[in-house]
Amino acid sequence: MVHLILVCSACQTEFAAEAKAWRCAKCKRFLKLRPRTPFTSKAIIEDDHSLWRYRAMLPVNSDTRIVTMGEGMTPLVEATFAEQQIHFKLEYVSPTGSFKDRGTTVLVTKLLEWGIKNAGDDSSGNAGASLAAYCAHAGIAADIFTPSSASPTKLAQIEIFGATLWKIDGPREAATTEIEEAVEAGKMTYATHAWSPFVYEGTKTVAYEIWEQLGRRAPDWFVSPVGQGSLFLGAYRGFKDLLAAGEISHMPRMLAVQSDRCAPIVEAITLNLMTHAEIEKRQSIAEGIALAHPIHDREILEAVRKTGGNAIAISDEDVESAQHLLAETGFYVEPTSAVVGAALEKLRPQGIVVAALTGSGMKSPIRPRSPRPVAT
Amino acid sequence: MVHLILVCSACQTEFAAEAKAWRCAKCKRFLKLRPRTPFTSKAIIEDDHSLWRYRAMLPVNSDTRIVTMGEGMTPLVEATFAEQQIHFKLEYVSPTGSFKDRGTTVLVTKLLEWGIKNAGDDSSGNAGASLAAYCAHAGIAADIFTPSSASPTKLAQIEIFGATLWKIDGPREAATTEIEEAVEAGKMTYATHAWSPFVYEGTKTVAYEIWEQLGRRAPDWFVSPVGQGSLFLGAYRGFKDLLAAGEISHMPRMLAVQSDRCAPIVEAITLNLMTHAEIEKRQSIAEGIALAHPIHDREILEAVRKTGGNAIAISDEDVESAQHLLAETGFYVEPTSAVVGAALEKLRPQGIVVAALTGSGMKSPIRPRSPRPVAT
Repeated sequence: MVHLILVCSACQTEFAAEAKAWRCAKCKRFLKLRPRTPFTSKAIIEDDHSLWRYRAMLPVNSDTRIVTMGEGMTPLVEATFAEQQIHFKLEYVSPTGSFKDRGTTVLVTKLLEWGIKNAGDDSSGNAGASLAAYCAHAGIAADIFTPSSASPTKLAQIEIFGATLWKIDGPREAATTEIEEAVEAGKMTYATHAWSPFVYEGTKTVAYEIWEQLGRRAPDWFVSPVGQGSLFLGAYRGFKDLLAAGEISHMPRMLAVQSDRCAPIVEAITLNLMTHAEIEKRQSIAEGIALAHPIHDREILEAVRKTGGNAIAISDEDVESAQHLLAETGFYVEPTSAVVGAALEKLRPQGIVVAALTGSGMKSPIRPRSPRPVAT
Repeated sequence: MVHLILVCSACQTEFAAEAKAWRCAKCKRFLKLRPRTPFTSKAIIEDDHSLWRYRAMLPVNSDTRIVTMGEGMTPLVEATFAEQQIHFKLEYVSPTGSFKDRGTTVLVTKLLEWGIKNAGDDSSGNAGASLAAYCAHAGIAADIFTPSSASPTKLAQIEIFGATLWKIDGPREAATTEIEEAVEAGKMTYATHAWSPFVYEGTKTVAYEIWEQLGRRAPDWFVSPVGQGSLFLGAYRGFKDLLAAGEISHMPRMLAVQSDRCAPIVEAITLNLMTHAEIEKRQSIAEGIALAHPIHDREILEAVRKTGGNAIAISDEDVESAQHLLAETGFYVEPTSAVVGAALEKLRPQGIVVAALTGSGMKSPIRPRSPRPVAT
C-alpha cells in the first residue's frame, strides 16, 4: 500500500492522511489526496458486483475491513426520453437511495481503519441518511447536524439508523458552524461529504462503471446535477483516470445542471469567471443542489470548459415537469435529480449520452401534475 | 426456443402460453409453465449485472426485446444481527424498491412480446408500483386496482408512473373481483403477480444469485416473508434447479415468516394440513403479507416440510422492534420485510443463513421507537 498524504489545494502544505485532517489547518482550503492510484483494467475483480470491484484503485490497505452494503454497479438503462436515446445511470438504486453511498462506503471504511468511534456531518438530506446508515453498519456513532427547518420525512430517515440528530435554528450555514465547533472541540470526526477527498475517490467509480457498461468506451456526454459536484467531479476524475490509462480515446463532454434559483457555476460559465459567481440563493424544490459556495468550484469549471461541455440552470417549473416525464419513462426520482431530465429536453446533447439519476423519488413524495379524476 | 405451454396444476389441461391464460379456464386453478429450462452455469452472462445474466434460463426468445431497468444481482451483505452472522439479501435495492421487480421484468417482457397494449393488476403496494413502472418503461398502459383504503403514499407512487388508478370500495377482495371483471370483458390483460408463472420465473433468480454470491454454494437457511410466497417459492424453485444441475449438494432449509394477524401457512404447519389453514385475517403493519388465501399454498408447505424448514408468525410489536434493529444495522426496510429480523431473533437458525429484505423503508415511513429528545 502506497503511503497516502493530504496536500492543501492552495498552499501545498502536506498533512498525514488521518481523520482530523479535513481541510488545510493553515489556509482553510480543501485537501487533495496524493498519490492517486492509476486505473488498471486488469485489477478489476470481475465477480464483485459492487464498486469494490475496483478495490485496487481505491485508497485502502489490502487488510482493511471494507464497510460496504453492496453499493455501486448501478444499472445503466437505455431509454427513449423526449425523443432522444439516453443511457440513464440509476444512482438511486443504491442501499440508501442515492449516489452518496459511493462516497460514504470509502469514507466510513477509512473511519473504521483509523479507529474512529464518533463521526458527524452537516446535511439534511441524502448525505446525512447515507452516513447514518453506513455508520450504523460499521458500529460507529453518528451525529447529524441539520437546519431545524429540514423536512421531517428526511430527518426521520436519518434518525431511524440510530444517528443523533441535532436540529439547528437559522440558515443552512448555521448547521455547518455548529458541527465545525463540535469537531474543533474534539467531540467527533468530521465525516464531511463536501470536503473529504475520500468521498471523491468513491464517486470516481461511476465513470469506471459507465465505461464497463458501455462496452469499455466513453460516452460523448455525461450529465449530472451539480451542488458541491461530488458526483460530477468524481465522474470527471474517473474519466481522466481512464484516459490516462489509455482505456478511452476522448473525454466525455461534461454537462453540469443546476437550479436557476441557485446557479453559481452556470453564472460563472456565462460570465467567464475562474471561480463560482456570487449569487443570491433562493429556495428551490431541487434542494439537494441549492448550494451557493461550491468548495471545488475551480475544478467544476475546468471540467465543463476543458471537455467542451456546458452548464445550464433549470426552473422549478421545468424540474417538476421533468420529474413527471422521467416517472412516465419508469424512473421515479427526486426533484434534485429531475433537473437532468429538463437539461436533456432543452440542450438535446448528441451522441452517446449518459445522464445520472442521483436520488430516489421515494425520499420526497412527488406532487401530482394536476388534479386527476380517480375512477371509483 | 422451446415451445412453452401452460398446464393446469389441478386438471392438467394445457393452454397456449399467451396473455389471456392467467388461470385454468376450466377449473380456475393456477397454471404451471412447461417445460422449465434447466440451470446451466456455463450460460451465465458474466458481464451482465442484472438478473438477465441468466437469460438462457428465462422463458424468452433469443430475439425478444427485454424490458429491464437493471433489476437483480442485489447486494448480499454479511452483518452481525442479534449476535448472529447473517447474510442479508438486499432486495429493496431494486429499481422500484422491492423484490417485485424480479417478476415484473419477466412478465412485462412477455406482455411486450405478445403485443399487449393494456395491462392491469390488483395491488395497493409494491407489485402495483413495480408493474406501473415497468409498463411505463415499455410503453404499455397500466391499470392498477386498489382498495380505496390503501395508503395515499403508496397510491401516489403508483400514479406517478402514469398508471390509471382504480380505487375500489370494500375489502381487498373487491379490487380483485373488479379487475377480474374488467379482464373478462376484454378490457385489459391480467398482469397478475399472484398467478402468473412468469413472475416465479423471475423470482427464481434470487437463488441463482445467492449461490453465485456465496461462492457457488447453497446457504443452510433461506428466510423470507410469505404472503403469496412469490419470492419464497421463486427461491425454492431456483435452489431446486441448482440441485438438479448438481451445482449444490443440499437444499437450504426454507423458513417462511408471516404476521401473527394473518398466518395461514404457519397454522397449516402447526395443524399438519396439506393446504393453508382457514384463518380470520386481522389488520397488520406487515400489510404486504396480510393474505389469507395463498394460491400456491401446497408448494409453500412442501418447501417448508421437504427441506426441514420452519414457519413462524410475528406480532406487530416484534415487527416494529425488528424494523428498528435492522435500521440500526444499516438496513432501512418496510414492516413487511422486518418480520424476517424478528424471526432471526426468535429462531436463531444455525449455519450460513440468508435472509431476504424485500422492500424499502422509504415506501412507508417508520415510526420512532419512542419519543426521543432532540438536541437544539
